[in-house]
Amino acid sequence: MPRKDLLDIVSLEREEIDHLLDQAVPFKELFTRSVKKVPALKGKSVLTLFYEPSTRTLSSFEVAANRLSADVTNFAVASSSIVKGESVRETVETLQAMRTDYIIVRHSRSGLPSTIARMTKASVINAGDGAHAHPTQALLDAFTIKEKFPDPTGKRVLIVGDILHSRVARSTSTILKKLGVEVAYLGPGSLVPKVGPENVQRFTNYEEAMKWKPDVVYLLRVQMERQDVQYFPSVREYHRLYGVTEERLRRIDGDGLYIMHPGPVNRGVELCDGVLDYSRSLINDQVENGIAVRMAVLYWLKPGGEVIG
Amino acid sequence: MPRKDLLDIVSLEREEIDHLLDQAVPFKELFTRSVKKVPALKGKSVLTLFYEPSTRTLSSFEVAANRLSADVTNFAVASSSIVKGESVRETVETLQAMRTDYIIVRHSRSGLPSTIARMTKASVINAGDGAHAHPTQALLDAFTIKEKFPDPTGKRVLIVGDILHSRVARSTSTILKKLGVEVAYLGPGSLVPKVGPENVQRFTNYEEAMKWKPDVVYLLRVQMERQDVQYFPSVREYHRLYGVTEERLRRIDGDGLYIMHPGPVNRGVELCDGVLDYSRSLINDQVENGIAVRMAVLYWLKPGGEVIG
Amino acid sequence: MPRKDLLDIVSLEREEIDHLLDQAVPFKELFTRSVKKVPALKGKSVLTLFYEPSTRTLSSFEVAANRLSADVTNFAVASSSIVKGESVRETVETLQAMRTDYIIVRHSRSGLPSTIARMTKASVINAGDGAHAHPTQALLDAFTIKEKFPDPTGKRVLIVGDILHSRVARSTSTILKKLGVEVAYLGPGSLVPKVGPENVQRFTNYEEAMKWKPDVVYLLRVQMERQDVQYFPSVREYHRLYGVTEERLRRIDGDGLYIMHPGPVNRGVELCDGVLDYSRSLINDQVENGIAVRMAVLYWLKPGGEVIG
Repeated sequence: MPRKDLLDIVSLEREEIDHLLDQAVPFKELFTRSVKKVPALKGKSVLTLFYEPSTRTLSSFEVAANRLSADVTNFAVASSSIVKGESVRETVETLQAMRTDYIIVRHSRSGLPSTIARMTKASVINAGDGAHAHPTQALLDAFTIKEKFPDPTGKRVLIVGDILHSRVARSTSTILKKLGVEVAYLGPGSLVPKVGPENVQRFTNYEEAMKWKPDVVYLLRVQMERQDVQYFPSVREYHRLYGVTEERLRRIDGDGLYIMHPGPVNRGVELCDGVLDYSRSLINDQVENGIAVRMAVLYWLKPGGEVIG
Repeated sequence: MPRKDLLDIVSLEREEIDHLLDQAVPFKELFTRSVKKVPALKGKSVLTLFYEPSTRTLSSFEVAANRLSADVTNFAVASSSIVKGESVRETVETLQAMRTDYIIVRHSRSGLPSTIARMTKASVINAGDGAHAHPTQALLDAFTIKEKFPDPTGKRVLIVGDILHSRVARSTSTILKKLGVEVAYLGPGSLVPKVGPENVQRFTNYEEAMKWKPDVVYLLRVQMERQDVQYFPSVREYHRLYGVTEERLRRIDGDGLYIMHPGPVNRGVELCDGVLDYSRSLINDQVENGIAVRMAVLYWLKPGGEVIG
Repeated sequence: MPRKDLLDIVSLEREEIDHLLDQAVPFKELFTRSVKKVPALKGKSVLTLFYEPSTRTLSSFEVAANRLSADVTNFAVASSSIVKGESVRETVETLQAMRTDYIIVRHSRSGLPSTIARMTKASVINAGDGAHAHPTQALLDAFTIKEKFPDPTGKRVLIVGDILHSRVARSTSTILKKLGVEVAYLGPGSLVPKVGPENVQRFTNYEEAMKWKPDVVYLLRVQMERQDVQYFPSVREYHRLYGVTEERLRRIDGDGLYIMHPGPVNRGVELCDGVLDYSRSLINDQVENGIAVRMAVLYWLKPGGEVIG
């Protein structure tokens, strides 16, 4: 049963996750065989509503929509509506009145996509809301891990960084646990939440975490533009304590571990230059799979139904 | 007989207005039946040339052009050509040389779209020029009123706000009078022009204006970003004197009046929060009809002919 | 034999140049007969990566790609990736992972497009890199000259301005010499390189240069936004010394010379207002031919092959 919206991972059933990940496979195969465009959503309109800029995520959704033959319009919120003081509700009513089929929304406020979803018949896709959720990132991460471990049950993923403020950490660890993957967190004590998902190990020391024997080291992006987060004592110190240094990369290589990162990477912070040439880096796989997974999401969701709010 | 350009309402014949409004009906029906795309303008190119930003109007034209299967390119004037000091004439000659079929232009200078129209074989659509005209807004307003009053002759529309500087007031009151609608203005004395269209009543007091018994209260947007207009004594005072307050909304509701606004709305200024849930608010109808009407305009205009200038 | 990339003019064989210029002819004819769209690149994806803004060049590529039915996504580098400190290599790996077919890149650093071309299977088109090359500008210039002189051998083109820092001067003089055209430079002594292509005459005085009897006067754009170049002693003085003044225009007209300029023009600097109405100005032809030539380039290049870097 298709849903109207994709707002988070928590409310997805295991069967729905499996369906989306399965559906992404033929989409990925299609364009590796250079059949890049299918008429599945011909005539449908997709509106992007990015209150936070993100070239990569925006482009990925644009390309995914184009490959399904949908029309994409970027509703440039930052430059006009915010300046003019228009409320989100009025913006959404405008999009609803324009009879858009899909609204892809990114905003710094947690829960805003759900609020929007209740206001409109359009399918709403959460492309990241505050520290809450980033479900298409989680789906592409899960897809990428399943490409390496077709049965990921019992595999171990170590997520490293500012867990507390990260919607990626939240959504990705949620999907991985639903797939039976074991998840652990590593980061500065102040940035690794003590409460949170059950059965997640917490580490504050790199060496301790590696003794847990992860199969994948998943590095979160350090949000250097965020002024409310203090990376103590400095970015250089962060790299020394939690980054994949050249020396650690050699051990990671020796142990056959995979490295993932949601991008864009801060080189010299989360990871050293060597990771760019590391054979078991899945960072580019994540980008490629992002398009296939977003095609699967757009294809699966079912715009329509009654407006509640 | 199709025209090359749509520059204002004043020069349109009554028959042309009727034709455009009639043509918008099947376009609107099409996409409410979720047939969102027709091949009418396949292969035609539309170039948007917005010297003033406007996400809503720009997106509305983009979606309208997409639904006719035209290709749309946004010629980002602000960010480059203006900086480089290129004159409008050179920009238009560039677009002409690119063999664009339609140029949609918004500019703070009155009359600029007409100047451009004389320079190019492309069809020019005025998407707002200074305090002069905004013909597609007028058409969508007329369409919206005709949906409620199929024969609008003798109906009464009260336009409220800064009439003097408003191209919306100008174009919309012109089209309404051509359709036989009675129009009155309400606003601060300094912002309601004493000269202007004949047979337009002028009010400076809300209670007086309501005694005129309008069928529609049309609120103009307060241009709070304009520093040359003084809203005396303050925005709060404006709301008290001319805005639709909660108390006034109750009376408007009791009298069965419709409310219109070209968007985006300044809540707490032109109107209170309650208007968002007011059953006779036509604000979202205006947005939806804007796409149908702009499709009708694009479909009707005939690019080509000789370049004069 | 098609190539993967178009990076400069220097490495193109004469046969390749002839092929591209010939191929542009039917593309130009097509859209003057108002057949504006062909399905040649349907399903292919074009990504624009402009680190330097340029509305004209960007729009020209967008329109060219649209007319070949390709999908275009603008990867907005300036607003996000640069801010976030992402390196070019990571950006290109992202585009590669998105399986884009064509990357159109403009950057202030000479040689960057070549670096990118080695990193990706996508076809890379250099849309201007530092003072190095601007091959599609050169192709459209050559096409424009061949429209006036079907056999351009022995014709004379005088390029005027800041030759030293101009990628247009470099690429255009290279292609013209390959076609047998004689090229001379005119500009302030400090801005006309003493080394450079063989058999290029150098002038620093306008009257001297005109005695050389050029057929075309090609004015470079004065980069007034560049702070590292001093136009001594002033822009007004530049116009007096090297610009096409009204008086010089009369003589140019009397001698039957053509005028070219890559745009956008600084009126009153490189040329006087009268040039806008000059019957032998080819400036708008250049814009129009730019689209046909860029269609020919996109159509000719062959994405694919192995990634080296």
